[in-house]
Amino acid sequence: MKIGIVGLGLIGGSLGLDLGMQGYEIWGVSRRESTCQAAMSQAVVTHASTDLASLAAVDLVFVCTPISAIVPTVAQLAQRLKPTAIITDVGSVKGAVVAAATALWPNFVGGHPMSGKAEAGLQAATRQLFHQRPYVLTPLAQTPSTAIDEVTRLIEQLGSQLYVTDPDSHDRAVALISHLPVMLGASLLQVCTTSDQRSLAQQLASSGFRDTSRVGGGNPELGTLMAEYNRPALLAALAQFQHQLAQLTQTIEHEDWSGLQAYLTAANQDRPAFVDGR
Amino acid sequence: MKIGIVGLGLIGGSLGLDLGMQGYEIWGVSRRESTCQAAMSQAVVTHASTDLASLAAVDLVFVCTPISAIVPTVAQLAQRLKPTAIITDVGSVKGAVVAAATALWPNFVGGHPMSGKAEAGLQAATRQLFHQRPYVLTPLAQTPSTAIDEVTRLIEQLGSQLYVTDPDSHDRAVALISHLPVMLGASLLQVCTTSDQRSLAQQLASSGFRDTSRVGGGNPELGTLMAEYNRPALLAALAQFQHQLAQLTQTIEHEDWSGLQAYLTAANQDRPAFVDGR
Repeated sequence: MKIGIVGLGLIGGSLGLDLGMQGYEIWGVSRRESTCQAAMSQAVVTHASTDLASLAAVDLVFVCTPISAIVPTVAQLAQRLKPTAIITDVGSVKGAVVAAATALWPNFVGGHPMSGKAEAGLQAATRQLFHQRPYVLTPLAQTPSTAIDEVTRLIEQLGSQLYVTDPDSHDRAVALISHLPVMLGASLLQVCTTSDQRSLAQQLASSGFRDTSRVGGGNPELGTLMAEYNRPALLAALAQFQHQLAQLTQTIEHEDWSGLQAYLTAANQDRPAFVDGR
Repeated sequence: MKIGIVGLGLIGGSLGLDLGMQGYEIWGVSRRESTCQAAMSQAVVTHASTDLASLAAVDLVFVCTPISAIVPTVAQLAQRLKPTAIITDVGSVKGAVVAAATALWPNFVGGHPMSGKAEAGLQAATRQLFHQRPYVLTPLAQTPSTAIDEVTRLIEQLGSQLYVTDPDSHDRAVALISHLPVMLGASLLQVCTTSDQRSLAQQLASSGFRDTSRVGGGNPELGTLMAEYNRPALLAALAQFQHQLAQLTQTIEHEDWSGLQAYLTAANQDRPAFVDGR
Protein backbone atom coordinates (compact mmCIF):
# COMPACT_ATOMS: atom_id res chain seq x y z
CA MET A 1 0.00 0.00 0.00
CA LYS A 2 1.24 3.46 -0.98
CA ILE A 3 0.50 6.36 1.36
CA GLY A 4 0.78 10.03 0.41
CA ILE A 5 1.47 12.80 2.91
CA VAL A 6 0.95 16.42 1.86
CA GLY A 7 2.70 18.82 4.23
CA LEU A 8 5.85 17.55 5.92
CA GLY A 9 5.70 19.38 9.25
CA LEU A 10 5.42 18.00 12.78
CA ILE A 11 2.29 15.92 12.09
CA GLY A 12 3.02 14.90 8.51
CA GLY A 13 6.62 14.03 9.33
CA SER A 14 5.65 12.03 12.42
CA LEU A 15 3.02 10.11 10.42
CA GLY A 16 5.70 9.31 7.82
CA LEU A 17 8.08 7.97 10.46
CA ASP A 18 5.52 5.66 12.10
CA LEU A 19 3.77 4.45 8.92
CA GLY A 20 7.10 3.90 7.18
CA MET A 21 8.05 1.60 10.07
CA GLN A 22 4.91 -0.42 9.26
CA GLY A 23 6.33 -1.11 5.80
CA TYR A 24 4.24 1.29 3.73
CA GLU A 25 5.72 3.29 0.87
CA ILE A 26 5.48 6.92 1.96
CA TRP A 27 5.13 9.50 -0.82
CA GLY A 28 5.71 12.96 0.66
CA VAL A 29 4.82 16.32 -0.90
CA SER A 30 6.11 19.64 0.38
CA ARG A 31 6.03 23.10 -1.17
CA ARG A 32 9.76 23.41 -0.58
CA GLU A 33 12.45 21.35 -2.26
CA SER A 34 14.68 21.71 0.83
CA THR A 35 11.98 20.08 2.99
CA CYS A 36 11.69 17.22 0.48
CA GLN A 37 15.43 16.64 0.71
CA ALA A 38 15.42 16.78 4.51
CA ALA A 39 12.48 14.32 4.66
CA MET A 40 14.33 11.89 2.39
CA SER A 41 17.60 12.13 4.32
CA GLN A 42 15.78 11.63 7.66
CA ALA A 43 13.91 8.62 6.25
CA VAL A 44 10.58 10.29 6.98
CA VAL A 45 9.44 9.40 3.45
CA THR A 46 10.46 6.92 0.79
CA HIS A 47 9.69 9.36 -2.06
CA ALA A 48 9.40 13.16 -2.02
CA SER A 49 8.27 15.80 -4.48
CA THR A 50 7.02 19.37 -4.62
CA ASP A 51 4.36 18.26 -7.15
CA LEU A 52 0.97 16.83 -6.09
CA ALA A 53 0.91 14.93 -9.41
CA SER A 54 3.50 12.61 -7.87
CA LEU A 55 0.66 11.10 -5.81
CA ALA A 56 -1.20 9.71 -8.87
CA ALA A 57 -0.62 6.11 -7.79
CA VAL A 58 -1.09 6.31 -3.99
CA ASP A 59 -3.97 4.54 -2.21
CA LEU A 60 -4.49 6.99 0.63
CA VAL A 61 -3.42 10.59 1.32
CA PHE A 62 -3.01 12.39 4.64
CA VAL A 63 -3.46 16.15 4.12
CA CYS A 64 -1.29 17.72 6.84
CA THR A 65 -1.30 21.37 5.72
CA PRO A 66 -2.50 24.31 7.83
CA ILE A 67 -6.32 24.37 8.14
CA SER A 68 -6.72 27.12 5.56
CA ALA A 69 -5.01 25.00 2.88
CA ILE A 70 -6.86 21.70 3.44
CA VAL A 71 -9.87 22.22 1.14
CA PRO A 72 -7.79 23.85 -1.65
CA THR A 73 -5.37 20.90 -1.42
CA VAL A 74 -8.24 18.39 -1.69
CA ALA A 75 -9.50 20.29 -4.77
CA GLN A 76 -6.10 19.88 -6.42
CA LEU A 77 -5.75 16.25 -5.36
CA ALA A 78 -9.19 15.48 -6.85
CA GLN A 79 -7.75 16.15 -10.29
CA ARG A 80 -4.71 13.94 -9.76
CA LEU A 81 -5.56 10.86 -7.62
CA LYS A 82 -6.87 7.54 -8.83
CA PRO A 83 -10.68 7.24 -8.29
CA THR A 84 -10.43 4.66 -5.49
CA ALA A 85 -7.99 6.71 -3.42
CA ILE A 86 -8.95 7.82 0.09
CA ILE A 87 -8.19 11.29 1.44
CA THR A 88 -8.05 12.10 5.14
CA ASP A 89 -6.87 15.26 6.92
CA VAL A 90 -5.45 16.16 10.32
CA GLY A 91 -7.03 19.59 10.84
CA SER A 92 -7.99 20.67 14.36
CA VAL A 93 -11.41 21.93 13.20
CA LYS A 94 -13.74 19.66 11.24
CA GLY A 95 -17.05 21.36 10.36
CA ALA A 96 -15.42 23.90 8.05
CA VAL A 97 -13.39 21.16 6.33
CA VAL A 98 -15.36 17.92 6.09
CA ALA A 99 -18.46 19.04 4.17
CA ALA A 100 -16.46 21.00 1.57
CA ALA A 101 -13.82 18.27 1.17
CA THR A 102 -16.46 15.53 0.87
CA ALA A 103 -18.21 17.50 -1.88
CA LEU A 104 -14.90 17.52 -3.78
CA TRP A 105 -13.94 13.90 -3.01
CA PRO A 106 -16.58 11.47 -1.65
CA ASN A 107 -13.87 9.15 -0.33
CA PHE A 108 -12.86 11.77 2.25
CA VAL A 109 -12.66 10.98 6.00
CA GLY A 110 -12.10 13.90 8.37
CA GLY A 111 -9.58 13.26 11.14
CA HIS A 112 -7.91 15.02 14.06
CA PRO A 113 -4.95 13.47 15.85
CA MET A 114 -4.74 15.21 19.23
CA SER A 115 -1.00 15.07 19.61
CA GLY A 116 1.21 18.09 19.83
CA LYS A 117 4.51 19.55 20.84
CA ALA A 118 5.65 23.07 21.51
CA GLU A 119 7.97 22.84 18.48
CA ALA A 120 6.74 22.83 14.89
CA GLY A 121 8.14 21.71 11.55
CA LEU A 122 9.81 18.61 10.17
CA GLN A 123 12.75 18.84 12.55
CA ALA A 124 10.28 18.33 15.45
CA ALA A 125 8.78 15.18 13.90
CA THR A 126 9.17 12.14 16.11
CA ARG A 127 8.21 8.48 16.29
CA GLN A 128 5.26 7.47 18.50
CA LEU A 129 3.79 10.99 18.53
CA PHE A 130 0.29 9.49 18.25
CA HIS A 131 0.81 6.54 20.58
CA GLN A 132 -1.87 6.39 23.31
CA ARG A 133 -3.18 9.80 22.24
CA PRO A 134 -6.75 10.52 21.07
CA TYR A 135 -7.34 10.43 17.31
CA VAL A 136 -10.82 11.59 16.31
CA LEU A 137 -12.54 10.62 13.05
CA THR A 138 -15.59 12.59 11.91
CA PRO A 139 -17.20 10.73 8.98
CA LEU A 140 -20.48 11.92 7.49
CA ALA A 141 -23.53 9.68 6.93
CA GLN A 142 -22.57 9.30 3.27
CA THR A 143 -18.87 8.56 3.89
CA PRO A 144 -18.12 5.06 2.44
CA SER A 145 -17.52 2.54 5.21
CA THR A 146 -14.59 1.11 3.22
CA ALA A 147 -12.84 4.48 3.52
CA ILE A 148 -13.58 4.74 7.26
CA ASP A 149 -12.31 1.20 7.82
CA GLU A 150 -9.07 1.83 5.95
CA VAL A 151 -8.26 5.03 7.88
CA THR A 152 -9.26 3.32 11.14
CA ARG A 153 -6.83 0.47 10.45
CA LEU A 154 -3.93 2.91 10.01
CA ILE A 155 -4.84 4.84 13.18
CA GLU A 156 -4.86 1.60 15.13
CA GLN A 157 -1.39 0.85 13.79
CA LEU A 158 -0.26 4.21 15.19
CA GLY A 159 -1.40 3.03 18.63
CA SER A 160 -3.85 5.92 18.99
CA GLN A 161 -7.08 5.95 20.99
CA LEU A 162 -9.80 6.17 18.32
CA TYR A 163 -12.93 8.27 18.82
CA VAL A 164 -15.63 8.62 16.16
CA THR A 165 -18.11 11.49 16.26
CA ASP A 166 -19.74 14.02 13.94
CA PRO A 167 -17.89 17.21 12.89
CA ASP A 168 -20.17 19.51 14.89
CA SER A 169 -19.77 17.58 18.17
CA HIS A 170 -16.00 17.48 17.63
CA ASP A 171 -15.83 21.20 17.04
CA ARG A 172 -17.92 22.04 20.10
CA ALA A 173 -15.84 19.75 22.30
CA VAL A 174 -12.49 21.17 21.15
CA ALA A 175 -13.86 24.71 21.46
CA LEU A 176 -14.39 23.96 25.17
CA ILE A 177 -11.22 22.09 26.02
CA SER A 178 -8.75 23.57 23.56
CA HIS A 179 -9.79 26.88 21.98
CA LEU A 180 -11.53 28.51 24.97
CA PRO A 181 -8.47 27.99 27.23
CA VAL A 182 -6.35 29.88 24.67
CA MET A 183 -8.67 32.89 24.82
CA LEU A 184 -8.84 32.80 28.64
CA GLY A 185 -5.07 32.67 28.99
CA ALA A 186 -4.57 35.51 26.51
CA SER A 187 -7.13 37.68 28.32
CA LEU A 188 -5.52 36.90 31.69
CA LEU A 189 -2.17 38.07 30.31
CA GLN A 190 -3.77 41.19 28.87
CA VAL A 191 -5.42 42.05 32.22
CA CYS A 192 -2.07 41.72 33.99
CA THR A 193 -0.03 43.67 31.46
CA THR A 194 -2.49 46.57 31.45
CA SER A 195 -2.71 46.69 35.27
CA ASP A 196 -1.04 49.41 37.33
CA GLN A 197 0.33 46.48 39.36
CA ARG A 198 2.07 44.95 36.31
CA SER A 199 5.57 45.23 37.72
CA LEU A 200 4.77 43.61 41.08
CA ALA A 201 2.56 41.02 39.37
CA GLN A 202 5.49 40.02 37.14
CA GLN A 203 7.75 39.63 40.15
CA LEU A 204 5.28 37.54 42.13
CA ALA A 205 3.77 35.40 39.36
CA SER A 206 4.38 31.77 40.12
CA SER A 207 3.52 28.26 38.88
CA GLY A 208 -0.25 28.85 39.06
CA PHE A 209 -0.01 31.82 36.74
CA ARG A 210 2.48 30.03 34.51
CA ASP A 211 0.15 27.08 33.99
CA THR A 212 -3.08 29.07 33.63
CA SER A 213 -1.55 31.35 30.98
CA ARG A 214 0.49 28.73 29.07
CA VAL A 215 -1.72 28.07 26.06
CA GLY A 216 -2.88 31.71 26.03
CA GLY A 217 0.71 32.71 25.38
CA GLY A 218 1.17 30.12 22.62
CA ASN A 219 1.41 30.39 18.83
CA PRO A 220 -0.66 33.45 17.71
CA GLU A 221 -1.14 32.21 14.13
CA LEU A 222 -2.53 28.89 15.35
CA GLY A 223 -4.86 30.59 17.84
CA THR A 224 -6.17 32.90 15.14
CA LEU A 225 -6.83 30.01 12.73
CA MET A 226 -8.66 28.09 15.48
CA ALA A 227 -10.98 31.05 16.02
CA GLU A 228 -11.45 31.70 12.31
CA TYR A 229 -12.35 28.11 11.45
CA ASN A 230 -14.25 27.27 14.64
CA ARG A 231 -15.92 30.63 15.16
CA PRO A 232 -19.53 29.59 16.00
CA ALA A 233 -18.49 26.91 18.50
CA LEU A 234 -15.86 29.17 20.09
CA LEU A 235 -18.34 32.06 20.41
CA ALA A 236 -20.82 29.69 22.07
CA ALA A 237 -18.13 28.50 24.48
CA LEU A 238 -17.13 32.10 25.26
CA ALA A 239 -20.76 33.01 25.97
CA GLN A 240 -21.17 30.01 28.29
CA PHE A 241 -17.96 30.93 30.08
CA GLN A 242 -18.97 34.55 30.55
CA HIS A 243 -22.28 33.40 32.00
CA GLN A 244 -20.49 31.10 34.45
CA LEU A 245 -17.96 33.74 35.46
CA ALA A 246 -20.73 36.31 35.97
CA GLN A 247 -22.52 33.88 38.30
CA LEU A 248 -19.29 33.23 40.21
CA THR A 249 -18.68 36.98 40.48
CA GLN A 250 -22.19 37.45 41.91
CA THR A 251 -21.50 34.76 44.49
CA ILE A 252 -18.43 36.72 45.62
CA GLU A 253 -20.25 40.07 45.48
CA HIS A 254 -23.00 38.65 47.70
CA GLU A 255 -20.39 37.21 50.09
CA ASP A 256 -22.03 33.82 49.67
CA TRP A 257 -19.02 31.89 50.94
CA SER A 258 -20.75 28.55 51.29
CA GLY A 259 -21.96 28.96 47.69
CA LEU A 260 -18.41 29.75 46.54
CA GLN A 261 -17.01 26.78 48.41
CA ALA A 262 -19.61 24.52 46.79
CA TYR A 263 -18.62 25.89 43.34
CA LEU A 264 -14.90 25.34 43.98
CA THR A 265 -15.58 21.90 45.48
CA ALA A 266 -17.43 20.90 42.31
CA ALA A 267 -14.46 22.08 40.22
CA ASN A 268 -12.08 20.14 42.47
CA GLN A 269 -14.16 16.98 42.14
CA ASP A 270 -14.94 17.29 38.41
CA ARG A 271 -11.39 17.95 37.21
CA PRO A 272 -9.92 14.42 37.52
CA ALA A 273 -12.40 13.08 34.94
CA PHE A 274 -10.94 15.55 32.42
CA VAL A 275 -7.26 15.17 33.22
CA ASP A 276 -7.04 11.54 34.37
CA GLY A 277 -10.06 10.34 32.41
CA ARG A 278 -8.24 8.28 29.84
CA MET B 1 17.52 34.66 69.62
CA LYS B 2 14.30 32.76 70.35
CA ILE B 3 11.76 32.44 67.53
CA GLY B 4 8.12 31.41 68.03
CA ILE B 5 6.03 29.73 65.35
CA VAL B 6 2.26 29.49 65.80
CA GLY B 7 0.74 26.90 63.49
CA LEU B 8 2.95 23.95 62.55
CA GLY B 9 1.73 23.19 59.03
CA LEU B 10 3.58 23.31 55.71
CA ILE B 11 4.77 26.92 56.11
CA GLY B 12 5.31 26.96 59.87
CA GLY B 13 7.06 23.60 59.81
CA SER B 14 9.30 24.59 56.90
CA LEU B 15 10.23 27.85 58.64
CA GLY B 16 11.16 25.84 61.76
CA LEU B 17 13.39 23.51 59.76
CA ASP B 18 15.34 26.31 58.04
CA LEU B 19 15.58 28.71 60.98
CA GLY B 20 16.54 25.89 63.33
CA MET B 21 19.45 25.14 60.99
CA GLN B 22 20.57 28.75 61.50
CA GLY B 23 20.96 28.05 65.21
CA TYR B 24 17.84 29.75 66.55
CA GLU B 25 15.75 28.24 69.34
CA ILE B 26 12.40 27.43 67.75
CA TRP B 27 9.37 27.52 70.05
CA GLY B 28 6.43 25.92 68.27
CA VAL B 29 2.75 26.18 69.18
CA SER B 30 0.04 23.97 67.73
CA ARG B 31 -3.54 23.40 68.78
CA ARG B 32 -2.91 19.67 68.82
CA GLU B 33 -0.62 17.83 71.20
CA SER B 34 0.04 15.18 68.52
CA THR B 35 1.36 17.86 66.15
CA CYS B 36 3.62 19.18 68.91
CA GLN B 37 5.04 15.70 69.43
CA ALA B 38 5.56 15.14 65.70
CA ALA B 39 7.29 18.53 65.36
CA MET B 40 9.65 17.66 68.23
CA SER B 41 10.47 14.21 66.88
CA GLN B 42 11.11 15.61 63.36
CA ALA B 43 13.38 18.34 64.82
CA VAL B 44 11.15 21.03 63.28
CA VAL B 45 11.15 22.84 66.66
CA THR B 46 13.31 22.83 69.76
CA HIS B 47 10.31 23.36 72.09
CA ALA B 48 6.60 22.70 71.48
CA SER B 49 3.40 23.49 73.35
CA THR B 50 -0.34 23.84 72.81
CA ASP B 51 -0.26 27.01 74.95
CA LEU B 52 0.54 30.46 73.51
CA ALA B 53 1.78 31.44 76.98
CA SER B 54 4.85 29.31 76.24
CA LEU B 55 6.02 32.11 73.93
CA ALA B 56 6.43 34.66 76.77
CA ALA B 57 10.20 34.83 76.30
CA VAL B 58 10.56 34.71 72.49
CA ASP B 59 11.92 37.66 70.50
CA LEU B 60 9.91 37.17 67.30
CA VAL B 61 6.82 35.17 66.35
CA PHE B 62 5.75 33.89 62.93
CA VAL B 63 1.95 33.48 62.86
CA CYS B 64 1.38 30.63 60.39
CA THR B 65 -2.31 29.92 60.99
CA PRO B 66 -5.06 30.05 58.33
CA ILE B 67 -5.91 33.66 57.35
CA SER B 68 -9.06 33.72 59.44
CA ALA B 69 -7.11 32.96 62.64
CA ILE B 70 -4.25 35.47 62.19
CA VAL B 71 -5.79 38.54 63.85
CA PRO B 72 -7.37 36.54 66.73
CA THR B 73 -3.97 34.91 67.32
CA VAL B 74 -2.24 38.31 67.40
CA ALA B 75 -4.85 39.47 69.93
CA GLN B 76 -3.99 36.55 72.19
CA LEU B 77 -0.25 36.94 71.71
CA ALA B 78 -0.53 40.63 72.63
CA GLN B 79 -1.44 39.58 76.18
CA ARG B 80 1.45 37.13 76.49
CA LEU B 81 4.57 38.40 74.66
CA LYS B 82 7.27 40.64 76.06
CA PRO B 83 6.81 44.27 74.91
CA THR B 84 9.82 44.30 72.55
CA ALA B 85 8.75 41.15 70.67
CA ILE B 86 8.06 41.34 66.95
CA ILE B 87 5.12 39.56 65.28
CA THR B 88 5.01 38.72 61.60
CA ASP B 89 2.53 36.59 59.66
CA VAL B 90 2.55 34.52 56.46
CA GLY B 91 -1.02 35.14 55.22
CA SER B 92 -1.64 35.30 51.48
CA VAL B 93 -3.80 38.43 51.85
CA LYS B 94 -2.47 41.50 53.66
CA GLY B 95 -4.99 44.37 53.73
CA ALA B 96 -7.45 42.50 55.92
CA VAL B 97 -4.68 41.47 58.32
CA VAL B 98 -2.03 44.18 58.63
CA ALA B 99 -4.11 47.14 59.82
CA ALA B 100 -5.98 45.10 62.44
CA ALA B 101 -2.87 43.29 63.66
CA THR B 102 -0.86 46.52 63.85
CA ALA B 103 -3.60 48.10 65.96
CA LEU B 104 -3.22 45.21 68.40
CA TRP B 105 0.59 45.06 68.30
CA PRO B 106 2.58 47.99 66.82
CA ASN B 107 5.64 45.77 66.32
CA PHE B 108 3.77 43.80 63.63
CA VAL B 109 5.22 43.29 60.12
CA GLY B 110 2.95 41.73 57.50
CA GLY B 111 4.57 39.09 55.33
CA HIS B 112 3.75 36.64 52.54
CA PRO B 113 6.20 33.94 51.52
CA MET B 114 5.15 32.85 48.03
CA SER B 115 6.15 29.23 48.33
CA GLY B 116 3.78 26.36 48.10
CA LYS B 117 3.27 22.69 47.49
CA ALA B 118 0.23 20.66 46.58
CA GLU B 119 0.45 18.89 49.96
CA ALA B 120 -0.41 20.57 53.24
CA GLY B 121 0.41 19.96 56.88
CA LEU B 122 3.52 19.31 58.96
CA GLN B 123 4.34 16.10 57.09
CA ALA B 124 4.77 18.19 53.90
CA ALA B 125 7.22 20.61 55.58
CA THR B 126 10.61 20.67 53.90
CA ARG B 127 13.94 22.45 54.03
CA GLN B 128 14.65 25.23 51.51
CA LEU B 129 10.94 25.77 50.75
CA PHE B 130 11.57 29.54 50.62
CA HIS B 131 14.92 29.43 48.82
CA GLN B 132 14.93 31.68 45.71
CA ARG B 133 11.18 32.23 46.07
CA PRO B 134 9.52 35.66 46.49
CA TYR B 135 8.84 36.75 50.08
CA VAL B 136 6.79 39.95 50.29
CA LEU B 137 6.79 42.28 53.30
CA THR B 138 4.04 44.89 53.62
CA PRO B 139 4.96 47.28 56.43
CA LEU B 140 2.86 50.36 57.16
CA ALA B 141 4.23 53.90 57.46
CA GLN B 142 4.19 53.57 61.26
CA THR B 143 5.83 50.13 61.41
CA PRO B 144 9.09 50.47 63.42
CA SER B 145 12.12 50.12 61.16
CA THR B 146 13.80 47.96 63.79
CA ALA B 147 11.01 45.38 63.36
CA ILE B 148 11.22 45.52 59.55
CA ASP B 149 15.00 45.10 59.70
CA GLU B 150 14.79 42.09 61.99
CA VAL B 151 12.22 40.26 59.83
CA THR B 152 14.21 41.19 56.69
CA ARG B 153 17.34 39.65 58.18
CA LEU B 154 15.56 36.33 58.78
CA ILE B 155 14.06 36.30 55.27
CA GLU B 156 17.50 36.84 53.80
CA GLN B 157 18.75 33.88 55.82
CA LEU B 158 16.00 31.77 54.20
CA GLY B 159 17.49 32.68 50.79
CA SER B 160 14.22 34.28 49.63
CA GLN B 161 13.83 37.10 47.11
CA LEU B 162 12.57 40.02 49.22
CA TYR B 163 9.94 42.44 47.91
CA VAL B 164 8.56 45.32 49.99
CA THR B 165 5.28 46.99 49.11
CA ASP B 166 2.09 48.25 50.74
CA PRO B 167 -0.73 45.85 51.67
CA ASP B 168 -3.10 47.20 49.01
CA SER B 169 -0.60 46.84 46.15
CA HIS B 170 0.23 43.32 47.33
CA ASP B 171 -3.42 42.34 47.44
CA ARG B 172 -4.16 43.72 43.98
CA ALA B 173 -1.12 41.99 42.48
CA VAL B 174 -1.95 38.58 44.00
CA ALA B 175 -5.60 38.99 42.98
CA LEU B 176 -4.37 39.20 39.38
CA ILE B 177 -1.73 36.48 39.34
CA SER B 178 -3.03 34.07 41.96
CA HIS B 179 -6.71 34.49 42.88
CA LEU B 180 -8.16 35.38 39.44
CA PRO B 181 -6.61 32.25 37.82
CA VAL B 182 -8.39 30.10 40.43
CA MET B 183 -11.77 31.58 39.48
CA LEU B 184 -11.06 31.26 35.74
CA GLY B 185 -10.04 27.62 36.05
CA ALA B 186 -13.09 26.78 38.18
CA SER B 187 -15.44 28.48 35.69
CA LEU B 188 -13.75 26.66 32.79
CA LEU B 189 -14.38 23.35 34.54
CA GLN B 190 -17.98 24.32 35.25
CA VAL B 191 -18.60 25.24 31.58
CA CYS B 192 -17.25 21.88 30.46
CA THR B 193 -19.11 19.78 33.03
CA THR B 194 -22.44 21.45 32.21
CA SER B 195 -21.94 21.11 28.44
CA ASP B 196 -23.83 18.57 26.35
CA GLN B 197 -20.37 17.69 24.98
CA ARG B 198 -19.05 16.80 28.47
CA SER B 199 -18.32 13.17 27.64
CA LEU B 200 -16.35 13.88 24.46
CA ALA B 201 -14.64 16.87 26.09
CA GLN B 202 -13.43 14.60 28.91
CA GLN B 203 -12.06 12.11 26.40
CA LEU B 204 -10.24 14.72 24.33
CA ALA B 205 -8.99 17.07 27.08
CA SER B 206 -5.23 17.26 26.92
CA SER B 207 -2.27 19.07 28.46
CA GLY B 208 -3.61 22.54 27.57
CA PHE B 209 -6.82 21.92 29.47
CA ARG B 210 -4.93 20.25 32.33
CA ASP B 211 -2.69 23.28 32.83
CA THR B 212 -5.37 25.95 32.37
CA SER B 213 -7.68 24.28 34.90
CA ARG B 214 -5.05 23.21 37.46
CA VAL B 215 -5.41 25.90 40.12
CA GLY B 216 -9.16 26.14 39.45
CA GLY B 217 -9.46 22.53 40.58
CA GLY B 218 -7.34 23.10 43.69
CA ASN B 219 -8.19 23.30 47.39
CA PRO B 220 -11.76 24.71 47.71
CA GLU B 221 -11.30 25.95 51.29
CA LEU B 222 -8.20 27.93 50.32
CA GLY B 223 -9.92 29.42 47.26
CA THR B 224 -12.89 30.49 49.36
CA LEU B 225 -10.65 32.14 51.99
CA MET B 226 -8.74 34.00 49.26
CA ALA B 227 -12.00 35.42 47.92
CA GLU B 228 -13.37 36.22 51.38
CA TYR B 229 -10.26 38.07 52.55
CA ASN B 230 -9.30 39.68 49.23
CA ARG B 231 -12.83 40.39 47.99
CA PRO B 232 -12.47 44.00 46.69
CA ALA B 233 -9.23 43.32 44.78
CA LEU B 234 -10.57 40.03 43.38
CA LEU B 235 -13.82 41.66 42.25
CA ALA B 236 -11.81 44.41 40.52
CA ALA B 237 -9.65 41.78 38.79
CA LEU B 238 -12.76 39.85 37.71
CA ALA B 239 -14.31 43.02 36.27
CA GLN B 240 -11.13 43.82 34.35
CA PHE B 241 -11.00 40.27 33.03
CA GLN B 242 -14.63 40.30 31.92
CA HIS B 243 -13.99 43.56 30.09
CA GLN B 244 -10.97 42.07 28.31
CA LEU B 245 -12.79 38.87 27.40
CA ALA B 246 -15.76 40.83 26.08
CA GLN B 247 -13.42 42.82 23.82
CA LEU B 248 -11.76 39.63 22.60
CA THR B 249 -15.19 38.10 21.93
CA GLN B 250 -16.16 41.16 19.88
CA THR B 251 -12.98 40.80 17.85
CA ILE B 252 -14.00 37.23 17.00
CA GLU B 253 -17.65 38.19 16.37
CA HIS B 254 -16.51 40.87 13.92
CA GLU B 255 -14.14 38.40 12.22
CA ASP B 256 -11.30 40.84 12.82
CA TRP B 257 -8.58 38.24 12.36
CA SER B 258 -5.68 40.67 12.17
CA GLY B 259 -6.94 42.21 15.41
CA LEU B 260 -7.14 38.78 17.04
CA GLN B 261 -3.67 37.89 15.86
CA ALA B 262 -2.33 41.16 17.31
CA TYR B 263 -4.02 40.34 20.64
CA LEU B 264 -2.58 36.82 20.74
CA THR B 265 0.83 38.08 19.63
CA ALA B 266 0.86 40.53 22.54
CA ALA B 267 0.02 37.68 24.93
CA ASN B 268 2.77 35.55 23.40
CA GLN B 269 5.30 38.36 23.77
CA ASP B 270 4.21 39.53 27.25
CA ARG B 271 4.12 36.13 28.93
CA PRO B 272 7.88 35.52 29.37
CA ALA B 273 8.21 38.57 31.64
CA PHE B 274 5.72 36.92 34.02
CA VAL B 275 7.00 33.37 33.92
CA ASP B 276 10.74 33.88 33.36
CA GLY B 277 10.92 37.31 34.91
CA ARG B 278 12.87 36.41 38.01
